[in-house]
Amino acid sequence: MTIATPYLLYLGRSVDPADVKTSRGIAAFRPDLCVGEFRQDACPLSLGLPRMSFDQAVAAGARTLVLGIANAGGTLNDALVEDGVAALEAGLDLAAGLHHRLCDEPRLRETARRLGRALHDVRVPPANIPVGTGNVRAGNRLLTVGTDCSVGKMYTSLCLVSAFKARNIAADFRATGQTGILVGGSGVPLDAVVADFISGAIEQLAPARADDGWDVIEGQGSLFHPSFAGVSLGLLHGAQPSALVMCHDPSREHLRGIPGRGLPAIADCLAANLEAARLTSPTIRAVGVALNTSAMNEDMAQRACETIGVSVGLPCTDPYRMGVEPILDYLLTGDRTPVDAAA
Amino acid sequence: MTIATPYLLYLGRSVDPADVKTSRGIAAFRPDLCVGEFRQDACPLSLGLPRMSFDQAVAAGARTLVLGIANAGGTLNDALVEDGVAALEAGLDLAAGLHHRLCDEPRLRETARRLGRALHDVRVPPANIPVGTGNVRAGNRLLTVGTDCSVGKMYTSLCLVSAFKARNIAADFRATGQTGILVGGSGVPLDAVVADFISGAIEQLAPARADDGWDVIEGQGSLFHPSFAGVSLGLLHGAQPSALVMCHDPSREHLRGIPGRGLPAIADCLAANLEAARLTSPTIRAVGVALNTSAMNEDMAQRACETIGVSVGLPCTDPYRMGVEPILDYLLTGDRTPVDAAA
Repeated sequence: MTIATPYLLYLGRSVDPADVKTSRGIAAFRPDLCVGEFRQDACPLSLGLPRMSFDQAVAAGARTLVLGIANAGGTLNDALVEDGVAALEAGLDLAAGLHHRLCDEPRLRETARRLGRALHDVRVPPANIPVGTGNVRAGNRLLTVGTDCSVGKMYTSLCLVSAFKARNIAADFRATGQTGILVGGSGVPLDAVVADFISGAIEQLAPARADDGWDVIEGQGSLFHPSFAGVSLGLLHGAQPSALVMCHDPSREHLRGIPGRGLPAIADCLAANLEAARLTSPTIRAVGVALNTSAMNEDMAQRACETIGVSVGLPCTDPYRMGVEPILDYLLTGDRTPVDAAA
Repeated sequence: MTIATPYLLYLGRSVDPADVKTSRGIAAFRPDLCVGEFRQDACPLSLGLPRMSFDQAVAAGARTLVLGIANAGGTLNDALVEDGVAALEAGLDLAAGLHHRLCDEPRLRETARRLGRALHDVRVPPANIPVGTGNVRAGNRLLTVGTDCSVGKMYTSLCLVSAFKARNIAADFRATGQTGILVGGSGVPLDAVVADFISGAIEQLAPARADDGWDVIEGQGSLFHPSFAGVSLGLLHGAQPSALVMCHDPSREHLRGIPGRGLPAIADCLAANLEAARLTSPTIRAVGVALNTSAMNEDMAQRACETIGVSVGLPCTDPYRMGVEPILDYLLTGDRTPVDAAA
């Protein structure tokens, strides 16, 4: 990564917290890299960073505006382009992970060229990805899966990596999305990979490893999301995981982007993931449920974890709020009544 | 399509019949467009067309060499490039549907430019494919699925379209692969679509229709193939089919490209497809099994269809050899004991 830091994080005109997940993820996991946030008056969201204009951010030392928006389809609308041009004019580089690339937008490309600024598109997959094989490979791999998009798979993965390391167990975060790549410094933007190569991209991202360490692979989408289930299935097969953690947002009223379509039950979603995963990983097991309880108070959050944990027979926690120790204990020592939720 | 016809069909050095499925498909369904076949001495295969050198083909009126090879990964190897250059020199245009595009290969691009010949890459997806929604849409859609890649989904789809039309029922072939696109004249090269847009590409390819006709959608891959299951699942969700036909090759000893990995049982594969399909098409039903019996004699083929038909409780036929009438009867009139194979 050669993106100049520190960052100014973009919220723009977003009103849905799920739309700014890239900016929020960077703020949460790399606060050391962030000097402030940029938002228009119409935006009610905040990352808890100082609100700055582009000029103020430059004065505070910011080098790059991260357009950390994750709208469905990854489009680059007019408002985003106008803000991008203004940021370039003020002295900032731009970084983004949208499908619609910064360098394919003439106004941004020409402004950047005129001013000598850089445009970074992190959603460009590597060349020469192989076709997946499903061949058995060595190593410990854990995959985070979900009932929906944007329910905490990256957060959970990053928390697990930190917790492994705190126990002196080698662990690597394998990023599969734009935010994860910006946070972790490497990875593959899986949803930009050509369809025939989904599983092969993950086999390449998390190859055989000979130590006792863990590859923690960031999941994407959901087997039950009609827009993205293909990505989720290819990722599941390519990951060949020995362990799954199911991520869920109990406050979500419908699948992201599809009003009227409810989320699957956690147990059904676990069972479907385990069944599909067995194609390449016959001994796979589920080791926990990770809830995003950010919309709940402390008591509600605790009760939600207890209720769901009992109902599916697995450790259940909010990784970011409560840590992942129960999941790690269960994974490494079986220290819990080992009920298979998918049985 | 502006590809000049008639075609010379390429077999090259292939020894595996499955590798030349694009050339064979065109010979089978558009014999009127084909003047001959080109193969090196090392190639034991034939399409039953006159074997011709490039010069002989030009003399016979051929305008385009179709590089109808479907190797895993869609690569353009040196031998293919050398033959392509020689064909251009002899006076032919080139058409192919490989992932590795003809126009990205410098030797082909420069030779074509120097001689004024055309290079046609049919595996280039359209721009601006939307993200799939799973929203209910009107119309009758039938999807061919399979236990493996290259087991006859395109053949079955084309046979079904012909049979619908013979009954004066409107029907359209919706091609999703390179061969289907070359045969049918339009379609979307699904395995070249970016992963996030698989289901959306199919929703666009087979939109709502208001007549009583049928869209017959060509399936790809298999839910049980570890290289391509993601494509198959996204296609299944995007197709939102009211009917499935399961395609199978009883002579296949292992999944295509993966020695040692067996094919799923037909009943298991049907059940998995029906379960996954219900996400966007709750009333889906299976209406038949299509066998590729080309490796069997007449008696064996008949017995295989009877045995499998009884075991899964659905009409079973080899569409190309025996027609699809039993499947169409069952689909349209329920004229058979209606046993749901997935129950």
